[in-house]
Amino acid sequence: MSGAFKNCRTIMITGASRGLGLQMVETLVSGNFSPGKIIATARNPAGAQELQSLAGKYPSIHIITLDVVNQESIERAAQEVDQLVQEDGLNCLINNAGINVVANFETVTAEKMLDNFHTNSVAPLMITKAFLPLLRRAAAKGTGMGIHRSAVINITSLLGSVELNWGDRGNTFKWYPYRTSKSALNMVTRCMAVDLEDDGILCMALHPGWVRTDMGGQEAPLSTEESISSVLSMIGELTAKDHGSFLHYTGETLPW
Amino acid sequence: MSGAFKNCRTIMITGASRGLGLQMVETLVSGNFSPGKIIATARNPAGAQELQSLAGKYPSIHIITLDVVNQESIERAAQEVDQLVQEDGLNCLINNAGINVVANFETVTAEKMLDNFHTNSVAPLMITKAFLPLLRRAAAKGTGMGIHRSAVINITSLLGSVELNWGDRGNTFKWYPYRTSKSALNMVTRCMAVDLEDDGILCMALHPGWVRTDMGGQEAPLSTEESISSVLSMIGELTAKDHGSFLHYTGETLPW
Ligand SMILES: NC(=O)c1ccc[n+]([C@@H]2O[C@H](COP(=O)([O-])OP(=O)(O)OC[C@H]3O[C@@H](n4cnc5c(N)ncnc54)[C@H](OP(=O)(O)O)[C@@H]3O)[C@@H](O)[C@H]2O)c1
Ligand SMILES: NC(=O)c1ccc[n+]([C@@H]2O[C@H](COP(=O)([O-])OP(=O)(O)OC[C@H]3O[C@@H](n4cnc5c(N)ncnc54)[C@H](OP(=O)(O)O)[C@@H]3O)[C@@H](O)[C@H]2O)c1
Repeated sequence: MSGAFKNCRTIMITGASRGLGLQMVETLVSGNFSPGKIIATARNPAGAQELQSLAGKYPSIHIITLDVVNQESIERAAQEVDQLVQEDGLNCLINNAGINVVANFETVTAEKMLDNFHTNSVAPLMITKAFLPLLRRAAAKGTGMGIHRSAVINITSLLGSVELNWGDRGNTFKWYPYRTSKSALNMVTRCMAVDLEDDGILCMALHPGWVRTDMGGQEAPLSTEESISSVLSMIGELTAKDHGSFLHYTGETLPW
Repeated sequence: MSGAFKNCRTIMITGASRGLGLQMVETLVSGNFSPGKIIATARNPAGAQELQSLAGKYPSIHIITLDVVNQESIERAAQEVDQLVQEDGLNCLINNAGINVVANFETVTAEKMLDNFHTNSVAPLMITKAFLPLLRRAAAKGTGMGIHRSAVINITSLLGSVELNWGDRGNTFKWYPYRTSKSALNMVTRCMAVDLEDDGILCMALHPGWVRTDMGGQEAPLSTEESISSVLSMIGELTAKDHGSFLHYTGETLPW
């Protein structure tokens, strides 16, 4: 990760109770150039023991309650984070919280489709809207594009690529709600990239690889440390050329 | 349209009360090689005067009640259509019903995103599931791929292309709910193409052009007649090479 985060004063990560979100907090805080304030959000902080014990060790971690599908919770969190970051604003928002409502053609229902869409596609949009004043405040202090200024990173999936959903790849992970929600998130990302460009806020979609978490399962090839050390390096190096992009954690551009 | 529909015995069109759906029924019924049974669905047939008077003139038109976001309505319609088509099954299902819940970054809400997603992305999936036995019955009688056998056509939009949502194109029609719903529909289409391939059921997504309807508005360049005569010619000529594709009404492939 090197010094990529040395000019990022404030960062917020959703879904930091476990999995990739928790690993982001852990890797960031133990790096040499850790952001001054790491805002780790969880819908139920009391149940997030590992995050709590990390925060006990590192005062730069601030735990904030945030249920990403609850608009009141989003607005309350935005107020709390506002108090916390003050004039710094927010340099980096990582929309990481996500669910996989597993269902194939036979088992899919409208409710499953709507639930997965709400958490994975709508929530990142509603959160970005609510945190826009904080993102803008940080962006107003800088030039260029990147996390030294202000950036929104949406954690998407390769399974959201419509193009790649074909042949052998299409015949595995036939998860209608999840795939659809991540395609929709990619469109949300691109729409926001268009709209936030004038504010100098970078916006892009990132696939973290297939990782051993509760969601990824134990057969996944990557550990959370491996995935997140690449993911954070990439995030640290994002520039204007990456605005509106869909990137693999190894840095390659993915087809929509 | 020529003789493209001469081997299509049964076709069903959702949202046939007005706009493009109504025009499809009208153009089909007045063609030389009209399908034997044209099932025109509407959520409120009593309010669909033009469709009613067309059906009064042409006995091949069968009006069926279908509210595409209501699962009971979907299942009831599937039973009624089953009675109607009997051993022929369904050669062509056109998922055309759609809404545009106009909202930009400032005005978008979770509810608007969910509503548009339900009608435009989830409904075509739930309808295809419910009509699968009828599609399979028709497919079992044929070989190759196309409307002579069995096909599902999802009416999508160029605005659902994530790739094209950039630059000048990204700076017009900044409709979050609609764009997102059509990207999601494209993923649903591709997932279904993968799953229905073994049954010999063609599945693809088609952009009808920008057309003067209640949705398209009066400044649109195309009349419904112009759009639908191209759309139906294309649908009539679809073959295996178009399975899983995203096509412009002029025949070009669109990027996802
Ligand atoms: N693992 C992979 O292989 C993989 C691959 C591609 C993309 N991804 C994406 O990476 C992201 C993280 O995945 P993961 O593997 O770390 O999954 P995970 O281990 O299942 O963790 C999911 C996280 O999201 C949180 N979350 C879910 N719904 C929430 C809500 N309504 N409000 C607040 N938080 C909520 C969970 O909180 P609780 O503890 O409260 O449930 C948890 O912190 C997701 O967006 C996922 O789609 C993962
Ligand atoms: N016009 C364009 O420029 C354009 C461009 C690209 C794509 N499209 C797509 O083409 C399709 C048709 O659009 P259009 O221009 O004909 O729109 P339109 O004139 O607004 O007609 C929409 C049709 O969908 C029906 N519908 C909506 N919600 C429904 C529901 N819950 N149940 C049953 N029917 C429902 C409407 O029925 P009611 O009469 O009962 O409301 C009506 O028949 C849509 O999928 C649209 O997204 C249109």
